[in-house]
Amino acid sequence: MKLLRYGPAGQEKAGALDAQGRMRDLSLLVPDLTPEWLAPERLRALTAIDLQKLPLVDESVRIGVPVAGSRQFVAIGLNYRKHAEEAGMEIPKEPVIFTKAITSLSGPNDDIVLPDGAQEGDWEIELGLIIGTKAQKVPVEKALEHVAGYCLANDVSERNWQAKRGGQWSKGKSFDTFGPIGPWLVTTDEIPDPQVLEMELKVNGETRQKSTTADMIFPVAQIVSHLSQFMTLLPGDVIITGTPSGVGLGMKPQQFLKKGDVITLRMDQLGAQTQKVV
Amino acid sequence: MKLLRYGPAGQEKAGALDAQGRMRDLSLLVPDLTPEWLAPERLRALTAIDLQKLPLVDESVRIGVPVAGSRQFVAIGLNYRKHAEEAGMEIPKEPVIFTKAITSLSGPNDDIVLPDGAQEGDWEIELGLIIGTKAQKVPVEKALEHVAGYCLANDVSERNWQAKRGGQWSKGKSFDTFGPIGPWLVTTDEIPDPQVLEMELKVNGETRQKSTTADMIFPVAQIVSHLSQFMTLLPGDVIITGTPSGVGLGMKPQQFLKKGDVITLRMDQLGAQTQKVV
Repeated sequence: MKLLRYGPAGQEKAGALDAQGRMRDLSLLVPDLTPEWLAPERLRALTAIDLQKLPLVDESVRIGVPVAGSRQFVAIGLNYRKHAEEAGMEIPKEPVIFTKAITSLSGPNDDIVLPDGAQEGDWEIELGLIIGTKAQKVPVEKALEHVAGYCLANDVSERNWQAKRGGQWSKGKSFDTFGPIGPWLVTTDEIPDPQVLEMELKVNGETRQKSTTADMIFPVAQIVSHLSQFMTLLPGDVIITGTPSGVGLGMKPQQFLKKGDVITLRMDQLGAQTQKVV
Repeated sequence: MKLLRYGPAGQEKAGALDAQGRMRDLSLLVPDLTPEWLAPERLRALTAIDLQKLPLVDESVRIGVPVAGSRQFVAIGLNYRKHAEEAGMEIPKEPVIFTKAITSLSGPNDDIVLPDGAQEGDWEIELGLIIGTKAQKVPVEKALEHVAGYCLANDVSERNWQAKRGGQWSKGKSFDTFGPIGPWLVTTDEIPDPQVLEMELKVNGETRQKSTTADMIFPVAQIVSHLSQFMTLLPGDVIITGTPSGVGLGMKPQQFLKKGDVITLRMDQLGAQTQKVV
């Protein structure tokens, strides 16, 4: 299924795409897509619903973050070889992790608000995943069983705050609106192999990033397994898996986001995002 | 007030200390100490309750994390000059921040479970604070108005995972049981100045850390203001404010936690913790 949440920020309702790709209102059956709805048996139960019998949703509505009440937002750094090279960093021997503030999550088409004084705003298209069942020390071969589904993500970053304001990357990754995800949570039955997805990000219509998840250094299963060795992952946790090359930091000369820029992202099976920088 | 939660992990109930320091059962009036109970008007309303009229709680009960449903656990690094020196790090020019997994939060006297293969477990006594009202870009002079109260914290760390396993500190800070806080959330009316609190941590009865919050490089108000510049702080967020010198990493020779060790922590007005390493 392709699950989503629609409506004004903070008042989103549950929805889903029908077989024709039209949005349907799930909210009388599912009040909100909270973490308990991500358990495998709940997701299977949702497939019993004949979406054609539910009301259509106006296509012009705002789309929100596809899951409510997430408690962690974890990111993987330097997970594509060429991106590590363009960032001037070593190829990691094991997954590099950092965190984004949970409050940075935003809808897939919400404006990106550059904070005052931000000179080095940057884009990062990424495959996101959302945890469905609690994961503690899971082996690689069982790791994908803990994933509820996948989503498109933009790991918006401010490079100056990330690297030069006191050490840990979270500082440049956590502003409000720096974590657009969605439009949909696509359940794993529709994406049996997350390592074959092509992705592309454009800024003002020019392609900046174009890659495939096949190029990840550490694939999704290894990321989930690795993370679960040193922290307990909870249903609803959002994990983004690293960005390929083509960020503004790596351009010569470097190019950063400015007001009025429009970013568009697209990924196989996961839909598209459009954000305006304000 | 001194608010607390008691009972088995995952089934805690709300409680409070009465004027004689005895635990009283708040749970018929306050189902649980969730973030909405931390708003200033709710905290003021709680003071209208005559705790003497509520049932006593058995003193042998387990004490849990003093607030339920926190969504972020943020920490400040290198906030005491001598600790930065013993860690071989530069004195920071602005607060260094990192995050701990929310799932690392544990009760003040719960066992600390060293993960398999952990060779460099370490202790860090810290002043913790819990946010009471949403904070975005607040100036220093208004910052303490967003704090609901203070608590004692142990920022348990595994130095090898923190420093040598892929870059960002979260990796060695996020294991389950690595974030004991409590026993109480002491509301700010009882602690008008958080910069005068003495603290002491012992391992197996020997003093390892002894300091005062007067020695912080960046005081609490500055930390809250600074954090709120680049992330939105939510009610229930836990922030720990850095540790003074005396950690195992800084000892000569270095000394790390081993099974059977007992850590005791104490801080003015915030109570005491005892943890056994298993």
